Amino acid sequence: MMRALSFLLLVTAACSGPAPAQAPAGQPAPVATAQADPLPSWNDGPPRRAIVDFVTRVTNEGGPDFVPVPERIATFDNDGTLWSEKPVPFQVVFAFDRVKALAPQHPEWKTRPPFASVLKGDMAGIAAAGEKGVLAVMAATHAGMTTDEFSASVREWIAGARHPKTGRLYTQMVYQPMVELLSYLRGNGFKTFIVSGGGVEFLRPWTEAVYGIPPEQVVGSAGKMKLEMRENKPVLMKLAELDLMDDKEGKPVGIQSRIGRRPIAAFGNSDGDLQMLQWATAGGGARFALFVHHDDAAREYAYDRDDKLQQFNAGWDEAVAKGWTVVSMKDDWKVVYPAQ
Amino acid sequence: MMRALSFLLLVTAACSGPAPAQAPAGQPAPVATAQADPLPSWNDGPPRRAIVDFVTRVTNEGGPDFVPVPERIATFDNDGTLWSEKPVPFQVVFAFDRVKALAPQHPEWKTRPPFASVLKGDMAGIAAAGEKGVLAVMAATHAGMTTDEFSASVREWIAGARHPKTGRLYTQMVYQPMVELLSYLRGNGFKTFIVSGGGVEFLRPWTEAVYGIPPEQVVGSAGKMKLEMRENKPVLMKLAELDLMDDKEGKPVGIQSRIGRRPIAAFGNSDGDLQMLQWATAGGGARFALFVHHDDAAREYAYDRDDKLQQFNAGWDEAVAKGWTVVSMKDDWKVVYPAQ
Repeated sequence: MMRALSFLLLVTAACSGPAPAQAPAGQPAPVATAQADPLPSWNDGPPRRAIVDFVTRVTNEGGPDFVPVPERIATFDNDGTLWSEKPVPFQVVFAFDRVKALAPQHPEWKTRPPFASVLKGDMAGIAAAGEKGVLAVMAATHAGMTTDEFSASVREWIAGARHPKTGRLYTQMVYQPMVELLSYLRGNGFKTFIVSGGGVEFLRPWTEAVYGIPPEQVVGSAGKMKLEMRENKPVLMKLAELDLMDDKEGKPVGIQSRIGRRPIAAFGNSDGDLQMLQWATAGGGARFALFVHHDDAAREYAYDRDDKLQQFNAGWDEAVAKGWTVVSMKDDWKVVYPAQ
Repeated sequence: MMRALSFLLLVTAACSGPAPAQAPAGQPAPVATAQADPLPSWNDGPPRRAIVDFVTRVTNEGGPDFVPVPERIATFDNDGTLWSEKPVPFQVVFAFDRVKALAPQHPEWKTRPPFASVLKGDMAGIAAAGEKGVLAVMAATHAGMTTDEFSASVREWIAGARHPKTGRLYTQMVYQPMVELLSYLRGNGFKTFIVSGGGVEFLRPWTEAVYGIPPEQVVGSAGKMKLEMRENKPVLMKLAELDLMDDKEGKPVGIQSRIGRRPIAAFGNSDGDLQMLQWATAGGGARFALFVHHDDAAREYAYDRDDKLQQFNAGWDEAVAKGWTVVSMKDDWKVVYPAQ
């Protein structure tokens, strides 16, 4: 729990600093899709070639690296790997927006920290409220309601909320090349899973429509739940107590507890994903590990070794040492976001 | 944790009583399978008709009860629903057999309760050791090792251990009509899941071969895990601490946390499954709930309202009140076990 809180505290601390100087993300022109090319948004560089080579090897029946279909498990981090995560992970925006939406039912929030700071958009005030404040915001927006009620609040938010910089819906902030990669893998017999540090109940309402990944293939951080009867019908109440922190060393735990099979390919973008990539590549036979490197300040964001929230440092070193694939957003992707 | 322990304590207590008078399970002759019949081991009674009617309705595109393929989630209890669970749940036999297998490395067990009792087959002695004793057996056989080591021990055991009454391998103690039902549902676009009070790591090594259910579609009781590095490779250590008790009110929690989508059909055999069936049927649209009633002392076992371990009492009453399907093993199944 402390780690989850520390993370969110860091988020608010980072938000309270001066806005980083970054070029606004442009709207890339849609790229014509060759019928035969499953990865039209990828430039023909080493990462694309490594992906195609791996998929070709594991699907080559009779070849030395062949992997039977049921074992073709691929796991993807979400924030920063499948969609953007700057200036703050979008679930944090959701939490703050929910505070604003719920405020009319909580007149006391106008003066109570950290809610008063959230309502005023005072990030320094939120950061000053510390872990206790972050916990209060998470409890008010992610617990004390049924799973159905929470899902409804996510659906409503994701249908209308827009990114402060691009003005896009958050579901339009997914990486087009990664969406193509998911589809390419599934077309080759892979089962694609999300394994996210973000909340599983925050992801499930929209991942099927956006990524083609059904709820039962989403693993994420989770709170405890309790079955209760309400008007003679069972409901699941979301509790303000952590059940799984699906980040760093928690990712292999989440994979084993929810999937029960070691992935043969894993995809991430920061040190929070390193243990997942280590876990995937520690199995026998052909293995694939890939990091997305955010080096594209013009079209998205540029951050890596020194980032306060999503550091890509130990992971980068290990990727270089072990020959894992590192994708340069700038060089390897023709477009970042889907055409609108 | 206390409930898990109480359950195992009950098991040992039940085992220490006099052996119940039951007819040995016969070896039924294999039944000829009509090519067109997906449920050849089911007699043409109300349960079979209810199953076929439900599947016909939810797959009838354009009909009022149509359910899109991704929402066709079916969840099955395992012990007593997909395979036998008498005289004790087979995982308990596994635990005791593991104590015997590990005994040479633990000379001190010869005199230490409850291990000494397990080694002597003294069920009264095991029961007398109470919860602490059961916890010690579970910790010694299900924790303190890596997930890979535990899986290997399950694979080894399940390949050779035989049921005390039928002499069959435990994987040959599955219910042939239920295996056909799983296949029938999958043939109609359903995704079939196990949601078991038994241990998820005990089930996953063999459910794919035996039921056609892959590891990632198995939900069960689980212990906590911890990532450790061993000779520069990550391993997951199984800890002697409960993470999910996937029984009774824990089943909807297990379904939501691992599957994240409410099943439209649920299958059980005892009060431990009642909350799962309530959860499944509380959703909108066409729903199906089924209990297997063990009323077949000649071919399997007969137990229901007064059973100490697997009571079928409140569930039976609710099934009658709500018109759920109750399968009579005696009347509705042509055979119980697969032909050998």
